Amino acid sequence: MSTDLVPTLDLDALRDRVDTVLAEILRRPPAGVPSPRGRAGELTRALTDFVLAPGKRIRPLLCVLGWYAAGGGGEDGEGGEDGEETLWRTAASLEVFHAFALIHDDIIDGSPTRRGRPSAHRAFATRHRARPDADAFGVHAAILLGDLALICSNALVNTAGLSPRQRDTVLPLLDAMRGEVLLGQHMDLTATGRPTGDVEEALTIARLKTAKYTVERPLHLGAALAGADRDLLALCSAYALPLGEAFQLRDDLLGVFGDPALTGKPVLEDLRSGKATVLMALATRHATPEQRKTLDALVGRADLDEDGAARVRHILQHTGARDTVECMIAERYEQALRALDGGPLAPEIAAALRQIAARAAIRTA
Amino acid sequence: MSTDLVPTLDLDALRDRVDTVLAEILRRPPAGVPSPRGRAGELTRALTDFVLAPGKRIRPLLCVLGWYAAGGGGEDGEGGEDGEETLWRTAASLEVFHAFALIHDDIIDGSPTRRGRPSAHRAFATRHRARPDADAFGVHAAILLGDLALICSNALVNTAGLSPRQRDTVLPLLDAMRGEVLLGQHMDLTATGRPTGDVEEALTIARLKTAKYTVERPLHLGAALAGADRDLLALCSAYALPLGEAFQLRDDLLGVFGDPALTGKPVLEDLRSGKATVLMALATRHATPEQRKTLDALVGRADLDEDGAARVRHILQHTGARDTVECMIAERYEQALRALDGGPLAPEIAAALRQIAARAAIRTA
Repeated sequence: MSTDLVPTLDLDALRDRVDTVLAEILRRPPAGVPSPRGRAGELTRALTDFVLAPGKRIRPLLCVLGWYAAGGGGEDGEGGEDGEETLWRTAASLEVFHAFALIHDDIIDGSPTRRGRPSAHRAFATRHRARPDADAFGVHAAILLGDLALICSNALVNTAGLSPRQRDTVLPLLDAMRGEVLLGQHMDLTATGRPTGDVEEALTIARLKTAKYTVERPLHLGAALAGADRDLLALCSAYALPLGEAFQLRDDLLGVFGDPALTGKPVLEDLRSGKATVLMALATRHATPEQRKTLDALVGRADLDEDGAARVRHILQHTGARDTVECMIAERYEQALRALDGGPLAPEIAAALRQIAARAAIRTA
Repeated sequence: MSTDLVPTLDLDALRDRVDTVLAEILRRPPAGVPSPRGRAGELTRALTDFVLAPGKRIRPLLCVLGWYAAGGGGEDGEGGEDGEETLWRTAASLEVFHAFALIHDDIIDGSPTRRGRPSAHRAFATRHRARPDADAFGVHAAILLGDLALICSNALVNTAGLSPRQRDTVLPLLDAMRGEVLLGQHMDLTATGRPTGDVEEALTIARLKTAKYTVERPLHLGAALAGADRDLLALCSAYALPLGEAFQLRDDLLGVFGDPALTGKPVLEDLRSGKATVLMALATRHATPEQRKTLDALVGRADLDEDGAARVRHILQHTGARDTVECMIAERYEQALRALDGGPLAPEIAAALRQIAARAAIRTA
């Protein structure tokens, strides 16, 4: 372990380091990203604001943990101290890629806020409110901003100093991750708006958008950078996939029952858009005909109010859907922890992964 | 020259080969692109339809010509026959990248058609017309489709088999190209809607969106793949930049005076959106107060009709703007041709580049 840079596996310290690296990168963005002082400076500044807004940084963190898990930070080889710059740039690229996914997602979901601030398209619309077409302008500028984030994240990988071996293992993982998240977004888009009892479809979306994209791929990327073997990658998957599902299931609960002051997300949004969550699919499947009629009438309505939401929450509760989802989270959380037991991971790495698991599965924001 | 694959520098044959390569690639897309038969098959099929619709393929063609210009196709080295697969995949990636740019551009411009067919967002809306939110759904699916095209174009580069030296020269060019086109789109977005006399700004947009993106960078990419030296890259720029401006100026004329049956683009679109073209900037600058009032009242109006358009065309003509743009095209076309004279290019390469120049500067579609 390169003790001068990361004295212990203190997750908060690692997250702070991710923030520092992101700020450094965005101060002098790679070629291909317009200068913040130039003619498209507004875009670059908006990207910086968006990426540097406080966040969990879970993907970069997992990338760093995957690297340590595979022996990165040791004295020699690609995982050695020379490889540290490559690791941090790759980890940072995941956060910038995530900005791309969120910015376009917020347009698609019509979300007015993100992390407690106006979403990118709303921020552009407000900044250009003197234009007669301010709302449309906001969406169009945010499309370009998302594109810029994707291009920037790729430029970060291109300039991360990957060795030929690292390219051969890391680039296919990155390509696969990007495709998976797109596939998940597309399934999400087509499923949203019409509540069905299709629990399997909702779980598949959770797997693609969260289990693989948010947990498994970042761990794999870091581990692959440090030259992980097949067994270690399999262990990462055994931990990541159930944990990622638990993470998404928790998100779904918070999206309906959470405190907007903590989540930074309006609590009616998932219900208004008719998001195809496991929670909603279970409720739909187990609803009485009466309850089903209420769900059909209220879920997916853009003008749903607090009263209507309270009626939906009542049904989510009384069909047992809420409890079932809590139970699914607990099962998956246990399964993720079991994957770490008795494995080859150094104790401090396993402990950090347990801590991440707790934060993902048991949280209020 | 590898005479078995490309017997002569017959541009139409080269374009057919680009089409064949694109069709092959999209039949078995790289990792990261969902299977056309899977759950996001609709996206992948839409990408295939979009990319394979007939087009000029000017960027891949120029990439191939740049490669030949730098001695690609010779007997040995990276530019030799073994490098041919790398060349074609890189060239094809430019067309897939261009699909990304067009799909998002059409959303931003609100263009209902592209290449004589419905634009991507309109095609999705029509296919899903049973949905109550069909129009919004179309835009959202097209945002994802553009994202997929960008991700796919990158996966093509990642799997093109670039040597370490090729990566070092080609990836920075690609990153720069992607940033330039985004910068151009952003300038275009902010300038559109309010006709001004700012000829310089309109020319800057033309340089970024067309001269560099469409002509210079593709030539440079192909040349760099074959190991071009600095002098050859400078020669490419001396040809490409004026030609690219001429190409955009011709596009601007066709956007107002062209025959929609030939261009595949509704002729009122540029006027309705208030596109910040050099043509419009010149007219605005040289308009009488009366003419200026008419331009301000009509240009940028979404409901502009044929009568209104005829009045605008009259002003574009009578301020001399149309003639000036024709003259600017002729000057730049000459300048591009002069750059080829007496240079080190093989005669058949120079001849092909002259032919491309004629097609770009003197055309009706």
